[in-house]
Amino acid sequence: MVSCFVSLRLGWCCGTLPRWRTNVQHRTVATWTSATAQWGLQQKKLAELYCPPVSQPPPRWGSSLLGKRAFSTTSASPQEVMLTSERYGVQRLPFSHLSDGDFAFFESLLPGRVVTDPDELRTFNVDWLQSMRGCSKMLLRPQTAAEVSEVLRYCNQRNLAVTPQGGNTGLVGGSVPVFDEIILSTALMNQVISFDKVSGILVCQAGCILESLNQYLAELDFIMPLDLGAKGSCHIGGNVATNAGGLRLLRYGSLRGTVLGLEVVLADGSLLNCLASLRKDNTGYDLKQLFIGSEGTLGVITAVSILCPRKPKSVNLAFLGCQSFSQVLGTFTACKGMLGEILSACEFMDDLCMTLVESHLTLSRPVTGSPFYILIETSGSNSAHDEEKLNHFLEHVMASGLVTDGTVATEDKKIKALWSLRERITEALTHDGCVYKYDLSLPVERLYDLVTDTRARLGAAAKRVVGYGHLGDGNLHLNVTAESDSRSLRDAIEPFVYEWTARHHGSISAEHGLGFRKKQHIEYSKPRGAVLLMQQLKAMLDTKGILNPYKTLPAAP
Amino acid sequence: MVSCFVSLRLGWCCGTLPRWRTNVQHRTVATWTSATAQWGLQQKKLAELYCPPVSQPPPRWGSSLLGKRAFSTTSASPQEVMLTSERYGVQRLPFSHLSDGDFAFFESLLPGRVVTDPDELRTFNVDWLQSMRGCSKMLLRPQTAAEVSEVLRYCNQRNLAVTPQGGNTGLVGGSVPVFDEIILSTALMNQVISFDKVSGILVCQAGCILESLNQYLAELDFIMPLDLGAKGSCHIGGNVATNAGGLRLLRYGSLRGTVLGLEVVLADGSLLNCLASLRKDNTGYDLKQLFIGSEGTLGVITAVSILCPRKPKSVNLAFLGCQSFSQVLGTFTACKGMLGEILSACEFMDDLCMTLVESHLTLSRPVTGSPFYILIETSGSNSAHDEEKLNHFLEHVMASGLVTDGTVATEDKKIKALWSLRERITEALTHDGCVYKYDLSLPVERLYDLVTDTRARLGAAAKRVVGYGHLGDGNLHLNVTAESDSRSLRDAIEPFVYEWTARHHGSISAEHGLGFRKKQHIEYSKPRGAVLLMQQLKAMLDTKGILNPYKTLPAAP
Repeated sequence: MVSCFVSLRLGWCCGTLPRWRTNVQHRTVATWTSATAQWGLQQKKLAELYCPPVSQPPPRWGSSLLGKRAFSTTSASPQEVMLTSERYGVQRLPFSHLSDGDFAFFESLLPGRVVTDPDELRTFNVDWLQSMRGCSKMLLRPQTAAEVSEVLRYCNQRNLAVTPQGGNTGLVGGSVPVFDEIILSTALMNQVISFDKVSGILVCQAGCILESLNQYLAELDFIMPLDLGAKGSCHIGGNVATNAGGLRLLRYGSLRGTVLGLEVVLADGSLLNCLASLRKDNTGYDLKQLFIGSEGTLGVITAVSILCPRKPKSVNLAFLGCQSFSQVLGTFTACKGMLGEILSACEFMDDLCMTLVESHLTLSRPVTGSPFYILIETSGSNSAHDEEKLNHFLEHVMASGLVTDGTVATEDKKIKALWSLRERITEALTHDGCVYKYDLSLPVERLYDLVTDTRARLGAAAKRVVGYGHLGDGNLHLNVTAESDSRSLRDAIEPFVYEWTARHHGSISAEHGLGFRKKQHIEYSKPRGAVLLMQQLKAMLDTKGILNPYKTLPAAP
Repeated sequence: MVSCFVSLRLGWCCGTLPRWRTNVQHRTVATWTSATAQWGLQQKKLAELYCPPVSQPPPRWGSSLLGKRAFSTTSASPQEVMLTSERYGVQRLPFSHLSDGDFAFFESLLPGRVVTDPDELRTFNVDWLQSMRGCSKMLLRPQTAAEVSEVLRYCNQRNLAVTPQGGNTGLVGGSVPVFDEIILSTALMNQVISFDKVSGILVCQAGCILESLNQYLAELDFIMPLDLGAKGSCHIGGNVATNAGGLRLLRYGSLRGTVLGLEVVLADGSLLNCLASLRKDNTGYDLKQLFIGSEGTLGVITAVSILCPRKPKSVNLAFLGCQSFSQVLGTFTACKGMLGEILSACEFMDDLCMTLVESHLTLSRPVTGSPFYILIETSGSNSAHDEEKLNHFLEHVMASGLVTDGTVATEDKKIKALWSLRERITEALTHDGCVYKYDLSLPVERLYDLVTDTRARLGAAAKRVVGYGHLGDGNLHLNVTAESDSRSLRDAIEPFVYEWTARHHGSISAEHGLGFRKKQHIEYSKPRGAVLLMQQLKAMLDTKGILNPYKTLPAAP
């Protein structure tokens, strides 16, 4: 048994060892079969990119690695994006227009931190997918909650609309203006306020970049309870405002459990301090929950208190190939039972996703020839125990034919490179043409049926229909690519996808939120009475509706 | 090393084996030193009691085991409890009084399920601590959400006040009427609606008893994500309405993360169906969070969807003695680091708690002679791995002098008996006289300082000042007993305890809620702006204020 562990450990390092022998019972040897030198280099670049100086605009999702459709701040493409208001035929609500007096007020409040140059504003007006564009004339960069309070108090009095913006990595158009809303950036609110090593509770400002926080914590032997592809750019405030899910939700639960406190500025500028650093607090209604996942429409999050887990002493990542989705499900059930408390992620991708990552990002997969792939991560406190559990699991899934091929990585660098195969699918898709994105919660047994049905329905009208996502959470990312945007293709996809999801009691937005793109579809997942109640809450907390208008909810009747 | 595991496994079974040898490095032998036959018997009785037929009123916290202050339904004591309105000088709000027409309406709506007999009503009017008493003239027992909807629609029209009641095990007077509010019992809404073995998601009605659910799930190889002393009586709907914490929060997180959906009837009778069975759903504001922890003041929870963990294959429970609270803290830090992902509970009790449990409940502790005791539970998927981790931890804490004595149980029966030492402290306290109860969140380093300071402050005025609680969550249960209720004693405790807690940025209610008893103290833990916002929410959702009046929030200005 010990030799198996050694093989597992050495797996990634050995380029030419044989793969697991699928026909051999009681032995599991994990190896790596592809050259990985280029990955190492890319990973290094990524690591550099992901730690920007705080005063610089953050890079987007590995943007500088992109080829023909680069999204860097010097790209010319933002100008080419059609205005959201024109594309979707939106009517501007009767907010005030910025006056010279407003510019003077903000310049005196935030000297040197008011951006009005059209070239500088361009990237903040366009979303990461480059399919939505607003025409804001002003971006504000407060450093403190007090400044945010002053900004909103003034805007509320003047009836000026505001779009809060974190890392601007959202996928539903929630973080960019639709018209000329003032962009309120959290980028300069990027300070860690405190970290308690006994309790593991971190308190920080909303503009801290997720990966920077993770690196800060790693040195203290802790990690953030969430991880996602956009970690190098996204802000913790934005993560909370959108109730981001990501890769670690399976293990550490949702932000609704791990966020312990929030500091929020309401639409009228009043400061709501619920920044408790307590694991338990049952004194009255839990107001912070109102702001988690409300996409900046009810208040602006300025600071976060969050419970962070210990950094696991041992991490393993298995990349496995399966011949059918039923084998994917069988493998998932087996890993939940056999890996138990050390299971920290369970993701799946179809073969087309891997083809995209290979062709557009020149990454290479360690295992080929399977229609489905699974990434299974373990995180634990004892490497020998974890490897033994993983080995038993791998023996089982290989012997039972659930998995036909695979590899395991235990070194941090190799683990990161394997993860990038999954994390960079979103980026690879943007290179494939126009992308129609759907983020759905479904009963896990039916997860891939929607991909199959959509593929059959669209036929040659689509370039590619791919499915991947968080298997452990029943969260499918369905993506359709085409050479160009087409009304007829969109009509073929929607409302088909939403109706299919509603019929299976799913959610039409598992983790991305509704933002601008999906707000009209909320009733596929929520009853009318619930939507009415949400509209009442919005009206109560933001009487003039200045906060992130045109987002999250359909207009009140 | 193997011999250690065997000893650990046999620990409880051997009545006369030596304890751990504190002076021996590199060897840890866990044993059991006290006779346990009587415990086994009591545990069997408890198990019988905890599974009542659904049509009977549920027993309270092991109530039939009580001696001189029995709380059973045949006890005469409820009559002796002073009326809350008189004791606290509360003015009745201008709700309607029940008329003959109302009785007729409810009898036709819920034939045979309207209780008006004063003798039958008595126990439902009095809280478990027997210190609050209302004078409700009617208890309703709906079986469906539709019936609850009809009840509330009628009550709202008629301006009749309603107190929702689950197992009536709360400790802050939240579940009993203050005046003549109609008691709306969830006892007959006790059906499991569905359970999905792949996702682990349970959907059930609000009146299911927590322990019954746990037993139902155990047969399917799952457990409930929460566990608490009142499990034999409390209803899952009440657990959610009070955001119950309990013993497993350390491992599985709070109900805010594990509750996936709720069905709620609002004050006007409208049914809000947010009963999703999805791990992720970001479509609009998360309305269910409004009802978690709002103590029935915003709506009546009629069904719950909750994520349940797999039943651990291996459970160990260590009962350890420490010579100081700093050693308790050291042990806690060590177990978090060394037990990692298998740590499922970490509780502490001071010596006085154990004295109470021994003297009032005739339980006996396995280890004596320490001023502090810790219960550390591990739950994992591999018994050999878990025992090895536990053994290393025990070796470390013994060798370093953090722990001076202890025992480990691995058998289910023995584990339950050990747990009862902790779970039944609340019950033991009620035998000690009049009890002043405080449930506080504090930075874990300062947790016991409050007990010491309170003891010093009260001196001979108190009979006993004891501290115990959920160390892993920073949650102290501070209890003061006295021969009788005394205004001067209460004035010596309050606001001292609240001010002390606020000074250390704690919460004056970690898990019990505010109910009637603590609503006036909310501003020790929440800023005025937050309380005002809560009052706005209450006014929006319950315009006439008929739902659980006099609870949770101070009256709006």
